[in-house]
Amino acid sequence: MDMSTGATTPSWDTRARNREARLARAAQVLGSRLQGKCAPAAAAVELLTAVIECGDRVCLEGNNQKQADFLAGALAQLDPKRTNNLHMVQSVLALPQHLDLFERGIASRLDFSFSGPQGARLARMVSAGQIEIGAIHTYLELFGRYFVDLSPQVSLVCAQAADRHGNLYTGPNTEDTPAIVEATAFRGGIVIAQVNELVDELPRVDIPGDWVSFVIPSPKPHFIEPLFTRDPAQISEIQVLMAMMAIKGIYAEYGVQRLNHGIGFDTAAIELLLPTYAQSLGLKGKICKHWALNPHPALIPAIEAGWVESIHSFGSEIGMENYIRARSDVFFTGPDGSMRSNRAFSQAAGHYACDLFIGSTLQMDLAANSSTATMDRITGFGGAPNMGADARGRRHASPAWLKAGREARQGRTGAAGTPRGQKLVVQMVETFREHMQPAFVDKLDAWTLQERAGFELPPIMIYGDDVTHILTEEGIANLLLVRNDEEREQAVRGVAGYTPVGMARDRRMVENLRDRGVIRRPEDLGIDTRLATRNLLAARSMRDLVDASGGLYAPPARFRNW
Amino acid sequence: MDMSTGATTPSWDTRARNREARLARAAQVLGSRLQGKCAPAAAAVELLTAVIECGDRVCLEGNNQKQADFLAGALAQLDPKRTNNLHMVQSVLALPQHLDLFERGIASRLDFSFSGPQGARLARMVSAGQIEIGAIHTYLELFGRYFVDLSPQVSLVCAQAADRHGNLYTGPNTEDTPAIVEATAFRGGIVIAQVNELVDELPRVDIPGDWVSFVIPSPKPHFIEPLFTRDPAQISEIQVLMAMMAIKGIYAEYGVQRLNHGIGFDTAAIELLLPTYAQSLGLKGKICKHWALNPHPALIPAIEAGWVESIHSFGSEIGMENYIRARSDVFFTGPDGSMRSNRAFSQAAGHYACDLFIGSTLQMDLAANSSTATMDRITGFGGAPNMGADARGRRHASPAWLKAGREARQGRTGAAGTPRGQKLVVQMVETFREHMQPAFVDKLDAWTLQERAGFELPPIMIYGDDVTHILTEEGIANLLLVRNDEEREQAVRGVAGYTPVGMARDRRMVENLRDRGVIRRPEDLGIDTRLATRNLLAARSMRDLVDASGGLYAPPARFRNW
Repeated sequence: MDMSTGATTPSWDTRARNREARLARAAQVLGSRLQGKCAPAAAAVELLTAVIECGDRVCLEGNNQKQADFLAGALAQLDPKRTNNLHMVQSVLALPQHLDLFERGIASRLDFSFSGPQGARLARMVSAGQIEIGAIHTYLELFGRYFVDLSPQVSLVCAQAADRHGNLYTGPNTEDTPAIVEATAFRGGIVIAQVNELVDELPRVDIPGDWVSFVIPSPKPHFIEPLFTRDPAQISEIQVLMAMMAIKGIYAEYGVQRLNHGIGFDTAAIELLLPTYAQSLGLKGKICKHWALNPHPALIPAIEAGWVESIHSFGSEIGMENYIRARSDVFFTGPDGSMRSNRAFSQAAGHYACDLFIGSTLQMDLAANSSTATMDRITGFGGAPNMGADARGRRHASPAWLKAGREARQGRTGAAGTPRGQKLVVQMVETFREHMQPAFVDKLDAWTLQERAGFELPPIMIYGDDVTHILTEEGIANLLLVRNDEEREQAVRGVAGYTPVGMARDRRMVENLRDRGVIRRPEDLGIDTRLATRNLLAARSMRDLVDASGGLYAPPARFRNW
Repeated sequence: MDMSTGATTPSWDTRARNREARLARAAQVLGSRLQGKCAPAAAAVELLTAVIECGDRVCLEGNNQKQADFLAGALAQLDPKRTNNLHMVQSVLALPQHLDLFERGIASRLDFSFSGPQGARLARMVSAGQIEIGAIHTYLELFGRYFVDLSPQVSLVCAQAADRHGNLYTGPNTEDTPAIVEATAFRGGIVIAQVNELVDELPRVDIPGDWVSFVIPSPKPHFIEPLFTRDPAQISEIQVLMAMMAIKGIYAEYGVQRLNHGIGFDTAAIELLLPTYAQSLGLKGKICKHWALNPHPALIPAIEAGWVESIHSFGSEIGMENYIRARSDVFFTGPDGSMRSNRAFSQAAGHYACDLFIGSTLQMDLAANSSTATMDRITGFGGAPNMGADARGRRHASPAWLKAGREARQGRTGAAGTPRGQKLVVQMVETFREHMQPAFVDKLDAWTLQERAGFELPPIMIYGDDVTHILTEEGIANLLLVRNDEEREQAVRGVAGYTPVGMARDRRMVENLRDRGVIRRPEDLGIDTRLATRNLLAARSMRDLVDASGGLYAPPARFRNW
């Protein structure tokens, strides 16, 4: 059979020729306003109109932290009669403009990971049929799809600075830029970067100019959110108690040396207890040496006390720049001194090189499935599914991973009994969240959301069979040790406190689980709850954090009251 | 508590200062032979001696394909009295020099992923206590650890070309370079690149010069192995039959559009059956549209027939350069026309964006655990564990993934019954491999190897509870449908042919599994085995592949007999 004539083989470089056509349109429209790769901010709408075609997949950079906000605003100004039906692919839906695009009829379809601040409006627009959601992803999954079936035709990214060749300096907030730009530039796409400044020489090159089509100096620096900053003044004594349980009942128990912490006061409390409580338990050097996490200011006291060997970060955190520069032994930094973050690599590290993920949730059901999606908010998942799942491809051993695997497999046979390690996935939740909403529920709101939004599956953030420990103010439930649905349910109920789910526990069975060590109360762990006061925190205010950093940490204004 | 005085805070930039000291030593030793970042090949041993310190973690680039062979040779020439106790971290142990390092006492510890050609010698050296193995990883896991607890102090990488600023052009074989260089350069390490040529202007920049410390023009081009090339002339009729079963019994059944293929004749046969057998089943456009895999020459007929929308690759394949250039709609290519590969992103894509992984193994046990580690070879795993594991962090749906998940969860309750998709992981093996060794065994050699090498766990490549289908010449066993150990065992036995494992089947139970569709024979799938001849292959020789490519594919000499 001779395939060489290939019956219907038209042309194999349509993408490359299409890119040339887009570039030619841009050159024509902008004329002399285009200097090499640089276009003025005033020409942004014209440039986007010239290079974007109807139905394009467009990636708008923006994550928890930095946002290509100027380009988002320009995109929202396009004429929907001329540019429409765009398929937006983006890590985070954070700015009002991101939804304006849909309201104005410029975009129609969305694949994304997280939508924190816009979650409520997103839910309303999905109900009203204004947005068709492809799927909610975890970041690394979305990046993976950029190289398979969701490659963008046009990407709008942001950087700190560019030179005239289009080389980009992202500074400490490299974040998603390398993944987005690579998937676009090498698939016949157009990359447009908004930059805070155009300079003759960059401190370092983070993205080669060859990969960038256009650079636009933005009228003002890109938006950036200090998302990982938590004021120690707001940490409660319950959070101190839970942090003590995490340290003594989980970190010390398994000897967790490599880990990730999610956002929040719960984990900030753990970080602030390392140089005090954990130190008093003799755990220095035994736990918490290597981290995959953003530069949390709450980690400063632990770093200063010599607890931390390395931190690799998804992104940076405002105010931490000088501190990071001065602590280059701990943080990944370039020869120029500023941090290098990279969400793709940090997520890979979080998935494969960390022994523990600890996060929080809004709701958990009796099977320990949890979700942050509630009735009227579609918030998405961020990095939690990737890091809060057992990394079944992992093959290197560590004591923590082996112990978790042994507990999970003890007494099992066949495939389920084959020795294998397991990732520790801890859900740390107070039994009631704000407005006295119970965190434990019979049925997740995710199920209702699935129906309303027409999802194939309920938007579950972390599945129950990936969760190894639930930690509440009432105690720790070790789900590695449960052996059937009933035990799992009672283990959940047994730490669910005074919520209706907790009240409906079978007391005898819960006591039996406690006897077996499946459930452990503070007293079972030898924790003196009288010590659980704010005095145990290594910093009790933002001012303390600044002091701990030797004045290097410079919190954003809204966190300063002095 | 005031942490700012930090009791024992010596210095926080030891890594940066150490790098400066290494660079200064290099400058001193090389003198005027160092021109900017460029050192002559003759000075390589002196340069390595100057920058490497005893006990360093050293990353030596090399994967299935390209190898930093010149630098590997130079490293093996160091004086072990002066440079010793190195901890080697590397994707693949492929060259004799990689083991010479240990034999000569320069290196002592090894963390790696794959060791195909050196597997037997590695096993002997481990037994003799000459090498301490940290762990065998899957690639993305090893990369992840480069950012956590295995960051290299020195990395020795390779590229096609460099300019005088140290910018690197990797050409189509970018492979592992970005991951290695980023983890080293931003953690105070030294990056040395061997390049085939030094040029004034690069076709494109793949690695920014800021990230590279030294460049050495190599006396000859780096070694590169055409690992993914399979001569269609060697495909057997049994492989054709198995390929028909894969296409009709799995790909069509689940509607698999996004997938990865491993190396080998089994999957080459599937690729060569797409434009013939699969076409005759009307499957074009319904399966096999998006791929994460190297540019397999065996895919040429399917590409030419319009089956393939996109291919993202871990690395490239010798001889495919011009074909790829001419098919830029399908492959990821740069504005310069040559391919861009990237193992880290392609592994992320393989893990999260593909619905199916199909691979092979040397041994499989009754729980469907499989391993390529046999008694006297430590071969490692490569990408198989990452892609051959259920991606439990995945949250986007596809019909294939949903159907697999439904089958796995049907009738289950609680956490195990919560709806969720599942990755299709297919093990495609003939019941007997070469020398009539049975592929199915009661106990994997991996267990013996564990004891001998002192591993924490047996080196299992793919765990039984991640395998969804076993495909042999006897039929397909769908493990998604088994519900207990006994059913699983009989499902394995039921496709294990005339191996002792197969002969020991419980015939009644196997027939029952067949009635339930757990086991399916070719006739159950409506496959006419008389059609399973080599005539069904879209190309039956290397020459056919060249013809199919319109003369663009240029196989390496050893594959040419004309």
